[in-house]
Amino acid sequence: MPRLRDAGELEALRRLIAARAADPTVVVGPGDDAAVLRPEPGMDLVATTDAFVEGRHYLPEWLAPAGLGGRLAAANLSDLAAMAAEPRWALLSIGARADHEVEALEALEHGLEQALRSEGAVVVGGNIAATEGPEWLSLTLLGEVAPGRAWARRGARPGDLIAASGAPGRAGAGLRLARSLGVKGRERVPAEWQALVDAWLAPRARVALARMLAATGAVTAAIDLSDGLLGDLGQLCRASAVGAEIRGEAGGSDPLLARAAKTLDVDPFDLWAGPSDDYELLLAVDPSRRAACELAAEAAGVALAFIGGCTDASGAIERLDGGSRRTLDPTGFDHFARG
Amino acid sequence: MPRLRDAGELEALRRLIAARAADPTVVVGPGDDAAVLRPEPGMDLVATTDAFVEGRHYLPEWLAPAGLGGRLAAANLSDLAAMAAEPRWALLSIGARADHEVEALEALEHGLEQALRSEGAVVVGGNIAATEGPEWLSLTLLGEVAPGRAWARRGARPGDLIAASGAPGRAGAGLRLARSLGVKGRERVPAEWQALVDAWLAPRARVALARMLAATGAVTAAIDLSDGLLGDLGQLCRASAVGAEIRGEAGGSDPLLARAAKTLDVDPFDLWAGPSDDYELLLAVDPSRRAACELAAEAAGVALAFIGGCTDASGAIERLDGGSRRTLDPTGFDHFARG
Repeated sequence: MPRLRDAGELEALRRLIAARAADPTVVVGPGDDAAVLRPEPGMDLVATTDAFVEGRHYLPEWLAPAGLGGRLAAANLSDLAAMAAEPRWALLSIGARADHEVEALEALEHGLEQALRSEGAVVVGGNIAATEGPEWLSLTLLGEVAPGRAWARRGARPGDLIAASGAPGRAGAGLRLARSLGVKGRERVPAEWQALVDAWLAPRARVALARMLAATGAVTAAIDLSDGLLGDLGQLCRASAVGAEIRGEAGGSDPLLARAAKTLDVDPFDLWAGPSDDYELLLAVDPSRRAACELAAEAAGVALAFIGGCTDASGAIERLDGGSRRTLDPTGFDHFARG
Repeated sequence: MPRLRDAGELEALRRLIAARAADPTVVVGPGDDAAVLRPEPGMDLVATTDAFVEGRHYLPEWLAPAGLGGRLAAANLSDLAAMAAEPRWALLSIGARADHEVEALEALEHGLEQALRSEGAVVVGGNIAATEGPEWLSLTLLGEVAPGRAWARRGARPGDLIAASGAPGRAGAGLRLARSLGVKGRERVPAEWQALVDAWLAPRARVALARMLAATGAVTAAIDLSDGLLGDLGQLCRASAVGAEIRGEAGGSDPLLARAAKTLDVDPFDLWAGPSDDYELLLAVDPSRRAACELAAEAAGVALAFIGGCTDASGAIERLDGGSRRTLDPTGFDHFARG
């Protein structure tokens, strides 16, 4: 099977980032010193970059190359969804070992392209560098948004509602279950847990939901869930200089998560709100426009739960259970922290 | 001294990519899910990405963090110069070990920012991922160019002249000398070789020269010298479906390179044309507009040598010495090839 050291860097690069289909916005595609793109005149440009490191962000036994490419796309697409931007163009930077099979790299790139293309974006350039250590993938994704219409983390006001899409916490629960089961590979996971493991392995970014919600004008601030609900809510609150109160029962409404919490012997609320890269949207919403958001979510076919509200207690995040109220610690992932 | 594992990823990231100065084109800067940028309406967007891997593309004993940041900027700026684009916005993706000193990362980022800013670009976003292996840096650089005015590798015609900026081959010669001297660190390099070692360690991208040359309308195709003159000329010829003939004496005109060739016991032409990442420009030029290019280069204060011409022998690169003519093998670097 051909490997990078056989095929040669340039040849591999050429095969890897060859344009698979013409796109009218791509004036000069992959294979030149840079790509030349034609944005819609007058639109703002939105740019994000996210990277995965082998052994840290993915394990080959859990993610085949195509799935890995799709997950990398989702992580970046989710950042653009959180800004209400339309994904357009991507550049892929790879650090690979010389014994990497060219076919596996092509499968990865194909998975990435498919996931991007399903949301309207194309790969327009890239780079492959040789490494002798853990491999890595870094994607930069560019999108467009009408001037002044991008969402940001800042903008939430006391009194705004807080909403979350999908089923937060499932990705983190899937990862913890996979670890606790001691198995390697999705096919060895008992059927009852596969939906959770899939939430971890194959998340889907909420680009379409963001598009529909943006049209309502109801969203005052947004962030995507990549660290976990509590950690990301903390970021949104800090950027907006507001506090938040979250209803405790919101953390117990996902029956699958409740079952996992029992198996893992943890509080379902902690599973729901703790470290988890779900790539869902967390939003602050003008309370007078809640109904429009609910209609938009219905049209997009994605659950949208109103889980609490913003307060003027800047930076404080509280959990409400009936009459009781306690302050939570909004700590997300820290990949560099001492193990 | 604080290290990444102490400071925590988020804090390090925040300090690292904090906007150092306001820029009117940056609507939402570092610290949100994505950056929001305001391009000049109607311009084309130009995008490139280039990465350095520790031990492969840089050695800590040869490049202090600030110099490494500057060199990464130069590699990407050079790609935009080769498209005649104005550099605007950059996103930095880092893979770092937990014991990396936060101060060293800040110095790196500062060196990168300074080099970018001197050519009109700002850092608008980034990512830090943890790795346990060789560290890596991946930069994506975005620029602007008037629609239809970007240079590309394709476009050269038989009869066009071939020109190279600066002093090609010096970077490769500097690297070979550094290796042959067996020293570690620029300050241990004898004074007579420091200009060559500096060409390798601290190249300067030809953004200003490209801007002036673009104004002449004389350039029909362009590529930057990142693999070596012969390798990159081969790429330009393949993309343009032309051949090239290079005058042998052009390879002997740099006295410093001639002296290095003697010390290294190699042909000065091979040193000039062989593997070397000089980040100079290699151009195909309309012969009727040579004088305009010479004036532009003079105005930019950069040497521009006319070293040969394009032929209709598609893909063939020949060396002319007086009456003799021989075909050269246009092979550049291949970082994955068997050592």
